[in-house]
Amino acid sequence: MSNTIKIGIAGYGNLGRGVEASVIASSDMELVGVFTRRDPSTVIPEGANTEVFGWDSLAQRTNDIDVMILCGGSATDLPEQGPELVKMFNTVDSFDTHAAIPHYFETVDAPAKETQHTSVISTGWDPGLFSINRLYGEAILPQGKTYTFWGRGVSQGHSDAIRRVEGVAAGVQYTLPAQPAIDAVRNGDQPELSTRDKHTRECFVVLEEGADAEAVRETIVTMPNYFADYDTTVNFISAEELAANHSSMPHGGFVLRSGDSGHGAAHRQVIEYGLNLSDNPSFTASVLVAYARAVHRLAQAGDFGAKTVFDIAPGLLSPRSAAELRADIL
Amino acid sequence: MSNTIKIGIAGYGNLGRGVEASVIASSDMELVGVFTRRDPSTVIPEGANTEVFGWDSLAQRTNDIDVMILCGGSATDLPEQGPELVKMFNTVDSFDTHAAIPHYFETVDAPAKETQHTSVISTGWDPGLFSINRLYGEAILPQGKTYTFWGRGVSQGHSDAIRRVEGVAAGVQYTLPAQPAIDAVRNGDQPELSTRDKHTRECFVVLEEGADAEAVRETIVTMPNYFADYDTTVNFISAEELAANHSSMPHGGFVLRSGDSGHGAAHRQVIEYGLNLSDNPSFTASVLVAYARAVHRLAQAGDFGAKTVFDIAPGLLSPRSAAELRADIL
Repeated sequence: MSNTIKIGIAGYGNLGRGVEASVIASSDMELVGVFTRRDPSTVIPEGANTEVFGWDSLAQRTNDIDVMILCGGSATDLPEQGPELVKMFNTVDSFDTHAAIPHYFETVDAPAKETQHTSVISTGWDPGLFSINRLYGEAILPQGKTYTFWGRGVSQGHSDAIRRVEGVAAGVQYTLPAQPAIDAVRNGDQPELSTRDKHTRECFVVLEEGADAEAVRETIVTMPNYFADYDTTVNFISAEELAANHSSMPHGGFVLRSGDSGHGAAHRQVIEYGLNLSDNPSFTASVLVAYARAVHRLAQAGDFGAKTVFDIAPGLLSPRSAAELRADIL
Repeated sequence: MSNTIKIGIAGYGNLGRGVEASVIASSDMELVGVFTRRDPSTVIPEGANTEVFGWDSLAQRTNDIDVMILCGGSATDLPEQGPELVKMFNTVDSFDTHAAIPHYFETVDAPAKETQHTSVISTGWDPGLFSINRLYGEAILPQGKTYTFWGRGVSQGHSDAIRRVEGVAAGVQYTLPAQPAIDAVRNGDQPELSTRDKHTRECFVVLEEGADAEAVRETIVTMPNYFADYDTTVNFISAEELAANHSSMPHGGFVLRSGDSGHGAAHRQVIEYGLNLSDNPSFTASVLVAYARAVHRLAQAGDFGAKTVFDIAPGLLSPRSAAELRADIL
């Protein structure tokens, strides 16, 4: 099995479990193990053969692992772990704080080049597959407009925000793309869309005993940054209903490019990319694993430093040879 | 203007005119001219400043042109022109005979490497953007199925076939994707679909005077290879209606990947890529022009030989710098 790509997983939450499943399902990969900051003896992995190691053993594993997939969060884990772990491993991560990407890129790129490692940062679906489609869209139809819609999906940040409201015992928030806005873009209209035009928000809230439903609703829909700029619906439900119907993590959305081509801008062309995901973390994990294959190949070719999805040729993601891909799916 | 990419166009039909418009609209490109096998004095270009040259002047222009975009047909032009012109120029083409791509690749790759030129073959939307999405789909969701649907769009080959039927004065054929099949795939069902399940065919036919409509209809719907395997509708219309309503060249379609991820294949995920094109040739042209930018960059970097869309990192298509793309659209 010397040709398999040896994968490590750093961080073992929902994303790490998704990566584990995806690596196990990939015949050209081998899972070396999961690295956790918890006491490894307390962690029970999903996979029957998955080994669990402590974080302090990372440095002893540098020769056993071709690519380390970083499964920590963007808020506090990755800004610290990305630049540190790339000194020891080739890495892939899903750093998704869009505004901080340029700085994060620099903090990973320098140590990667210095230690001759390769890293793909900020992959997944947005940033990631959606970004690629924004790029293809504007490169192919430079006269046009790009629209990104998210949902229907659970937003963790907004769910946390409603749970902090006084009188709320539990709750989940869904971001929904606005159908009239999508229809107008699909139709080739290139509308100007406000924040309120593009998305609506739907909350499912379990009240604490004796809480004032109308006051809770008012606090939520007027909350600055999170809800005030959107049309928000608040539904009050029981704890049982929340557990039964709102514990999965669906997400998705659309990237649309509407543009003109030809002489005199006469021809309206619309490109649409859409995701309909029943489970957000396991899909993001599948993307990370495909990019780990690309990272391994780039590192073997001596192409070191930080990269993004924009720098990775599609063929590098596939286990199949270039000749096979040309014959079968081009 | 020394930094602009100097483009030549070889062949000046619908595709060549589309490329001309797209190059004129690209601020980082400059159109050197159009090369035609006709007498150049008989060709009136769309662009006010477009120069028209004879085919025999190609060899004198090798130093003036960074990338030659080949706009001939796949049946007879490109198999001859691709391998010949790549000895003189970096090239891009839309060779779209899927089964012949591996052979065509070899016939371009060898002379390209020998003469230190770069060529992207078989780009456009299928092969091209649809191929990329088939690849991303199977690389990211290896447990799953890929579906490609075409239409609604004019099929040139099928339109030609109905025009050859006795009693037919003129006609156009549209390929339509079958909505129930698309709905099933979007729903995550991963159905097994026959040829008849996936597409229907719609013909608009102008009869010759005195022709037997029922006999024409019967000949069309039972025609082997073209129509016998499909549900085909034949509509008889006047020459005026054909000219008024059926002279544009819309096309498009969908690539769908339906797959599972996560432990126990529990999570159904659907990726959908769709094109809705009001004009097929000018969109294909826009794709060729974006890939010409990539070809120029690869040639400058000394990366010679034949390539396909699978070998081209998305960022190479954009006139913007990698840092700008990371900051703006990642």
